Amino acid sequence: MSHTSQGWISFKRCCKVFLAAGTVVVIGDLVGGGVSRFPRAEMASKISKVEEGEGDIRERCKTLMSPPVTDIKVLEERKDAMSTRMEMVIMETQASFCKALEEVDGGTFKVDRWSRKEGGGGISCVMQDGKHFEKAGVNVSVVSGYLTEEAAKQMRSRGKVLKGKDGKLPFCAMGVSSVIHPKNPHIPTVHFNYRYFEIEEADGSKQWWFGGGTDLTPVYIDLEDAAHFHNTLKSACDKHNPKYYSDFKKWCDNYFYIRHRGETRGIGGIFFDDLDSPNQEEVFNFVKSCAKTVVPCYLPIVYKHLNDSFTPEEKDWQQVRRGRYVEFNLVYDRGVKFGLATPGSRIESILMSLPLTARWEYMHEPTKGTKEAKMLEVLRNPKEWI
Amino acid sequence: MSHTSQGWISFKRCCKVFLAAGTVVVIGDLVGGGVSRFPRAEMASKISKVEEGEGDIRERCKTLMSPPVTDIKVLEERKDAMSTRMEMVIMETQASFCKALEEVDGGTFKVDRWSRKEGGGGISCVMQDGKHFEKAGVNVSVVSGYLTEEAAKQMRSRGKVLKGKDGKLPFCAMGVSSVIHPKNPHIPTVHFNYRYFEIEEADGSKQWWFGGGTDLTPVYIDLEDAAHFHNTLKSACDKHNPKYYSDFKKWCDNYFYIRHRGETRGIGGIFFDDLDSPNQEEVFNFVKSCAKTVVPCYLPIVYKHLNDSFTPEEKDWQQVRRGRYVEFNLVYDRGVKFGLATPGSRIESILMSLPLTARWEYMHEPTKGTKEAKMLEVLRNPKEWI
Repeated sequence: MSHTSQGWISFKRCCKVFLAAGTVVVIGDLVGGGVSRFPRAEMASKISKVEEGEGDIRERCKTLMSPPVTDIKVLEERKDAMSTRMEMVIMETQASFCKALEEVDGGTFKVDRWSRKEGGGGISCVMQDGKHFEKAGVNVSVVSGYLTEEAAKQMRSRGKVLKGKDGKLPFCAMGVSSVIHPKNPHIPTVHFNYRYFEIEEADGSKQWWFGGGTDLTPVYIDLEDAAHFHNTLKSACDKHNPKYYSDFKKWCDNYFYIRHRGETRGIGGIFFDDLDSPNQEEVFNFVKSCAKTVVPCYLPIVYKHLNDSFTPEEKDWQQVRRGRYVEFNLVYDRGVKFGLATPGSRIESILMSLPLTARWEYMHEPTKGTKEAKMLEVLRNPKEWI
Repeated sequence: MSHTSQGWISFKRCCKVFLAAGTVVVIGDLVGGGVSRFPRAEMASKISKVEEGEGDIRERCKTLMSPPVTDIKVLEERKDAMSTRMEMVIMETQASFCKALEEVDGGTFKVDRWSRKEGGGGISCVMQDGKHFEKAGVNVSVVSGYLTEEAAKQMRSRGKVLKGKDGKLPFCAMGVSSVIHPKNPHIPTVHFNYRYFEIEEADGSKQWWFGGGTDLTPVYIDLEDAAHFHNTLKSACDKHNPKYYSDFKKWCDNYFYIRHRGETRGIGGIFFDDLDSPNQEEVFNFVKSCAKTVVPCYLPIVYKHLNDSFTPEEKDWQQVRRGRYVEFNLVYDRGVKFGLATPGSRIESILMSLPLTARWEYMHEPTKGTKEAKMLEVLRNPKEWI
């Protein structure tokens, strides 16, 4: 089984595997929120546009970082299948995000294609030690195969009885996931992951669900950035369900929690899993909306702080926070834990979420009243940003 | 429950808690092995000696970094109890090692006493960003309390029926553990931990066992250092049982294994747990011998490389290896995992084993034939050093 960092899917809470989606289009009106000083118009011209809609697959493939994981002919043959539509979305999300980051950094992503002997594979795009990014990873994985009897049994224990042909249940899981660690401590780390999973029963019927989220990990609090980030996500959510933003914002705060520190990893965003209602088309559209917000959520914040000056002390605090990021990812992240425990995983893709550098200081506690202490206060008491 | 990093004890494989021991005496003839160019005679004068034997407790306490965790009066009243003898040994191990490191570095350890509301506490000694040591931590913990019914049940499932008074089983666990991360990439990281555990049944009889080990994590292979380190440990083992060294060397290689990388953490040493035969006195003497070898195992290696020059590339490779150290400690180390999952743990003591700085490079693979590749080869194929 192959996995990217945090690109997991809870296999209905038992066997976690991969999935994702996103025809990414950088559209101004998706941004929402009212942070007027962000250079939106400028952004629109700076970031490469990808044509919206689900047009000709071969044509859409020309905009990608690499050909899709699945053979283009196969995708064309099954162009209406959700697995095909999702694979195109995750590939396009990877491409639009990588291109936006390359444009701001001036560097280029290293693109690695890898395959998995049991079926499927992935495309890892990593830019390391760029001008502005310490480490930027955007990974796609599309895997398929059969569920083991154990996994199927665990599925059943969650309430859904799944009947396999001769005890075997074919599955397909795909996802795009990314973690960006900038050099400048005034530019936050961002993480997102969008995934899709389907499993086929003996009678040919399919179980499916989506998961995902986008969350921000700043080193210092910037209220304007936080409001922009959350407003952008809320706009995407509100188009689909008025409860999504508040429900998935809470889920995010709960998930990205470093229990042994009593701190959240960052200032959150949205997080959801096992989403299978009201219907496949609507959930797919919601996930597409989320995937489309990745660039407008993050890039304006990057541009805003690109040339901020910083002190060695601010860099040190960033490194301490990076240490906490490592702690969350290695100790709690379900995708990482599952990936590391799974023989045959592509470790480099799983651990590309780790920062290039991190720091652990014994008994580090910021002085009261400092901006480091204010950051910690927020991480210890998650708040509403909009 | 309080725990230091890696200072765990498998509670007969169910509930892991703390323990340890070691009247540390730096005695030349314990060193064994035949690495003639190490300045042994010089070492003997450089490293503060602690009087061997179990003499007057109040007098022995004068040599410690801090008064013992248990009140001296209580220790005097129960001076023949194994828990007292072990507590003195772990306190003296901490003191002799800290003093030897202070002497070589010129810096001083920060000493923190902490207590645990359920009973007991610990003493953490940490030197951070010293002249030669990036981070040096030596932790003692002595905790006591009652086993939960769940823990007792798990004990029984391992085959030993333990009857508690009204379902409660008083226990006492203690240990000394240490991780030293030097700045110079030619000086290896060392880790050791010695621990003791006892549990009292309803009829007043006691179950007890010891655990521990010392292991080395170099950044580059130095055959002479490896032979010295393993020979020193073998000499300590051979005095007690001719099978100990080879058995515990294997156990060490198996335990400190980063499964997802297919690499050991370092070049090993010895590791043992649940040791309760042939009798308490003999196991205690063996653990004392091991604890006594900590300084002669490590300090000659430190002095040998103290002024070695190094390149930025060598420093980078050290940082990559530090990243692997973090991976082992956060993903696999049973003591860390148990400590992080236990409410009320002293997190700073558990995580003091993490390096001050670490690095994760995507797809890092040393060029064939380089000394970095040779190090990796050894980590992928553990070998005999003597």
